[in-house]
Amino acid sequence: MLHTNIGVNAAGHLTFAGVDTLDLAARFGTPLYLLDEDRVRARAREYVETMRECMPEGSAPLYAGKALSFAGIYRVVCSEGMNIDVVSQGEIATALAAGADPARMFFHGNNKTDAEIAYAIAHRIGHFIVDGFDELYAVDRAAAEAGVVQRVLLRLTPGIDPHTFEAVNTGMDCQLGVQMDRAMEFLSEALECEHLSVVGLHCHIGSQVFDAQPFLDAADIMLSFMADALTLRGFIPEYLDLGGGFGVRYTEDDPFVDIPAEIRRIAERVREGVRARGLFEPAILLEPGRSIVADAGMTLYTVGQVKPGTDGAKNYVTVDGGMSDDPRFALYGSRYTVYPASRMDEERELVWTVAGRCCESGDVVAENVPLPSPRRGDLLAVAVTGAYNFSMASNYNRVCRPALVMLSGGEARVGVRRETPEDIMARDIVD
Amino acid sequence: MLHTNIGVNAAGHLTFAGVDTLDLAARFGTPLYLLDEDRVRARAREYVETMRECMPEGSAPLYAGKALSFAGIYRVVCSEGMNIDVVSQGEIATALAAGADPARMFFHGNNKTDAEIAYAIAHRIGHFIVDGFDELYAVDRAAAEAGVVQRVLLRLTPGIDPHTFEAVNTGMDCQLGVQMDRAMEFLSEALECEHLSVVGLHCHIGSQVFDAQPFLDAADIMLSFMADALTLRGFIPEYLDLGGGFGVRYTEDDPFVDIPAEIRRIAERVREGVRARGLFEPAILLEPGRSIVADAGMTLYTVGQVKPGTDGAKNYVTVDGGMSDDPRFALYGSRYTVYPASRMDEERELVWTVAGRCCESGDVVAENVPLPSPRRGDLLAVAVTGAYNFSMASNYNRVCRPALVMLSGGEARVGVRRETPEDIMARDIVD
Repeated sequence: MLHTNIGVNAAGHLTFAGVDTLDLAARFGTPLYLLDEDRVRARAREYVETMRECMPEGSAPLYAGKALSFAGIYRVVCSEGMNIDVVSQGEIATALAAGADPARMFFHGNNKTDAEIAYAIAHRIGHFIVDGFDELYAVDRAAAEAGVVQRVLLRLTPGIDPHTFEAVNTGMDCQLGVQMDRAMEFLSEALECEHLSVVGLHCHIGSQVFDAQPFLDAADIMLSFMADALTLRGFIPEYLDLGGGFGVRYTEDDPFVDIPAEIRRIAERVREGVRARGLFEPAILLEPGRSIVADAGMTLYTVGQVKPGTDGAKNYVTVDGGMSDDPRFALYGSRYTVYPASRMDEERELVWTVAGRCCESGDVVAENVPLPSPRRGDLLAVAVTGAYNFSMASNYNRVCRPALVMLSGGEARVGVRRETPEDIMARDIVD
Repeated sequence: MLHTNIGVNAAGHLTFAGVDTLDLAARFGTPLYLLDEDRVRARAREYVETMRECMPEGSAPLYAGKALSFAGIYRVVCSEGMNIDVVSQGEIATALAAGADPARMFFHGNNKTDAEIAYAIAHRIGHFIVDGFDELYAVDRAAAEAGVVQRVLLRLTPGIDPHTFEAVNTGMDCQLGVQMDRAMEFLSEALECEHLSVVGLHCHIGSQVFDAQPFLDAADIMLSFMADALTLRGFIPEYLDLGGGFGVRYTEDDPFVDIPAEIRRIAERVREGVRARGLFEPAILLEPGRSIVADAGMTLYTVGQVKPGTDGAKNYVTVDGGMSDDPRFALYGSRYTVYPASRMDEERELVWTVAGRCCESGDVVAENVPLPSPRRGDLLAVAVTGAYNFSMASNYNRVCRPALVMLSGGEARVGVRRETPEDIMARDIVD
């Protein structure tokens, strides 16, 4: 199977995290998000322990909640020793509701509003990652009003092409961060801000990166900048935040990434670069999101209609979810691995397009999926849906968003309850 | 301006539906969806009156709620005499909450679940538009269980290419409806179902269609099928539903569609086709959604950061919304017209990429937008956002979805209140 938490039991049913997916569908209904909590913990520990072992004190992974944000996930990752990357008041409020320590939060985002900045300062969020000049002044003003000195990191854009999709490439010309040609000016301005304490530098090169090389290239650029900053401004950062982006295996065609090995490559390169340039060694921050939760996720759907193609048309099977709970195919053409969860031991003769339920021909879950001749009521499972599925879900077609069930030690519990039509209508004003 | 409900007042501020957009932003906050109710009514009346005037009795437009569904919109379109196209239990529940008559609802969708079918029958939804064989049997079974005879239309796929985007082309090989080569078998099966009354045929060729020609081609195919159905099965449909899809003008490059004229072309072609084939004349249904609400919508954003490009990089301006309230650029590369709402009388020297607030380089609202040198706090307005913006919005980045304010006769009232972090967290289980 694609990942070690996926299996088949004696009944010929797909299992996930050791639990029969048919039992889960019967108990909680479909469409259903599953999250293997034990896998999340293992992935989190892998980052925490490796970074502790090979990087300077203070180094830590920040969980990038934009991949999957609900109260329960923050409990899990915080208890494993991760810090938190938050990008909005909504994420901060969720993490706080879960009991997360605001001092361990890093507030990201390229358009923090004045209201959000004031909210974050009032809630004593440990660090802001400042995305540009306008925001720098806004955070300084808000800190002044609150009578505090806010710790900040500065987001720079090192111009690395991670050889990945343009849409997730954030190291080149884009709206995020400050380009290197204005980086020293940005730092100088930040150091002048009376109510800011500049404690680090940040960069992020993109996502689904399968090799540490672009991180190493980015680290080199950041270290060279640190050398200039030391010379020109006497600036010594506590933190060098290299962002996130390790790739995950969605299909058999994707490689496995040996994350501890890649983390060690990064640690070594930074250490060497620091020595070569005569710098003080910063603590390193990384921002894994997808690589923490993606393969801990699975989505279960029930087949509604089966439409074998005639005259060369494709074979279609439709399910009770789709782009409303997972817009990644529609957005990026993302590929997934789909299993016939209720009929794993049957022969898969033809390939099928698995289409979603929204009234739109672009609502496709996956193409060319080998399935035993499907029937209404079959259970299908889409693997590796832990990242950017729940978090990007919508109420398109006024469809209710699925429940999310957490699995641990063979037990299941609801992490997010299923949405109802009443939830969707709650904001409508009917006079 | 792009549409007649957009203007500029003496203060140099953009107006929408006669109201100063700065006043609206100050009163309701941003990001903010605006909906010009008077424009919606005018568009609805255009369909209702033209169809009444040139088509047989019983002909009517169905409002395709998937374009924009909240309680208030159903009040507006129903009071103008439109029937309703619903695609989920959520849409049905919303229309019912608004007091809409279930007898006037047509239940669409390619994957109605058994639970939704039972719900719709229990609530006496007037018509089902049956998408395929599996669903046919499922609706028949549910009607039998409820002890009713359910009126149904059958969705066929005439194979017309409307010369539009692949993603919204639903007349070719796709998951929606039954291909013509199996249409007679589909009809025969439907006529055998004891608890179904087959009252019509449906097809839908796609969206953003700027010319009636593909509708005329589709009508020809459907009429030929009706002729065969009369001969072979003695079947006479009450309704011929030709779906939706008239295009709307998003930018100056898009043409205006003279909808009454196009409706008349369709009416004439059907009448001629009916005569030529010796058929009984069916009532005609059309399913406008986008063309009813799109240009009645506008979205207001506040500028957060301004990043002039250096070294040939693009100029970026970021706003407090984006793909979370409007994923259409990310999904389809859709183009919009953006106005500097607070500074309409200033010179627009450079072009800017307007980027959203989500942590993703693909979060773009529009490119190459001429703006007077932007500043944090400027108000930007994106025109023609009434369709598929509110309805496709997500909580990506845990961002709260905007309020929707309805404008009528110069007065503003909230149709959908702004989402709060508490709303977003309401389904999280914190034990």
